[in-house]
Amino acid sequence: MGKVVVDVTMSLDGFIAGPSPSLEEPLGAGGECLHEWLFGLKSFRERHGREGGEANRDSDLLEESFRSTGAVVMGRRMFSGGEGGWTDDPNAAGWWGDEPPFRVPVFVLTHHERSTVTMKGGTSFTFVTSDPEHALAVAREAAGDKDVSVAGGASTIQQFLRAGLVDELQLHVAPMLLGSGTRLFEGLGPDDVRLEALRTVDSPRVTHVKFRVVR
Amino acid sequence: MGKVVVDVTMSLDGFIAGPSPSLEEPLGAGGECLHEWLFGLKSFRERHGREGGEANRDSDLLEESFRSTGAVVMGRRMFSGGEGGWTDDPNAAGWWGDEPPFRVPVFVLTHHERSTVTMKGGTSFTFVTSDPEHALAVAREAAGDKDVSVAGGASTIQQFLRAGLVDELQLHVAPMLLGSGTRLFEGLGPDDVRLEALRTVDSPRVTHVKFRVVR
Repeated sequence: MGKVVVDVTMSLDGFIAGPSPSLEEPLGAGGECLHEWLFGLKSFRERHGREGGEANRDSDLLEESFRSTGAVVMGRRMFSGGEGGWTDDPNAAGWWGDEPPFRVPVFVLTHHERSTVTMKGGTSFTFVTSDPEHALAVAREAAGDKDVSVAGGASTIQQFLRAGLVDELQLHVAPMLLGSGTRLFEGLGPDDVRLEALRTVDSPRVTHVKFRVVR
Repeated sequence: MGKVVVDVTMSLDGFIAGPSPSLEEPLGAGGECLHEWLFGLKSFRERHGREGGEANRDSDLLEESFRSTGAVVMGRRMFSGGEGGWTDDPNAAGWWGDEPPFRVPVFVLTHHERSTVTMKGGTSFTFVTSDPEHALAVAREAAGDKDVSVAGGASTIQQFLRAGLVDELQLHVAPMLLGSGTRLFEGLGPDDVRLEALRTVDSPRVTHVKFRVVR
């Protein structure tokens, strides 16, 4: 059985999105800058159906995550590109276009029943209306021997951390302050999460730090 | 001329002290745990007049900071061990005992005039009642070719960062959440501080990340 991993980019002051997220800026003001380290990478571009890009340590590390992921869990806001993007129309697509970059089964936590949507390139969206434990069980089933990635947003990650469902946390810490927005660890404290450092990989654009979540 | 550096231990969720600091727990609840990586180190023990300890990469890195520091700037709460520790008695010592670990001239930002106190082991405390720029000028004078370390607390560090007076920021990121307390970057945003990663040093107990502060 694979692991349950959280893999997310955070500013040095603890934010994973900037303030005032909208459909135009789903990561809030300045939130796009957080992910600038990704856009030029070979493995990132491949996932998004584009050619070229840098083949460096960052790219390898991202490729490593892609390869080990067998299923993704996300909240409904991440699926729909923010609060304003959600619609009850069962036929409406998500924010991710015709060929989303996940390329594995994605399980969306929501209160609204919808049938599974199959996209191009290997991604499907299945809507799970029960609790995180159940969502995880079906995601594990789909992932087989591979890992389940809890992709976001923050409240979904916090729910999974608080419930003790996460095995590993990999943070890509970007050398910048956002000053406001969505904090990754909002509402969590030392009693909710205990960590043990596993690995740090340095790069000029971002520091990759991986932790085991201690039960 | 040396650099102006901030060198501080931060939890993964951005705190440099826990909640409810007191004279007994000047770093607040759980704040002492942040600094656990230090207590067993050879270079740390030496500074505190104790023998033994581990001579490892963490110890070398700390030694490097000690060696390069020619003067220290701190706020009055750091001098006196928190809000409750401050007294207007000009003869009262600070929180740091007879032989403080700084072993260089320390400049304390305060609204209260006091004469300089000379301690054992090379530390002196000089009280500076003007602005951070002036405090820095006298600290630079004392430091000679060496660096000036802006030691804390958080509000002093924030003042210096906001005023564009800091050249380098070294964070020792401890693999733990504090959940509440004093945030290092409280009130600062992308317009106040721009960073460029210089170096990451990994260790099982803490990740050392050093940044240049871009003017």
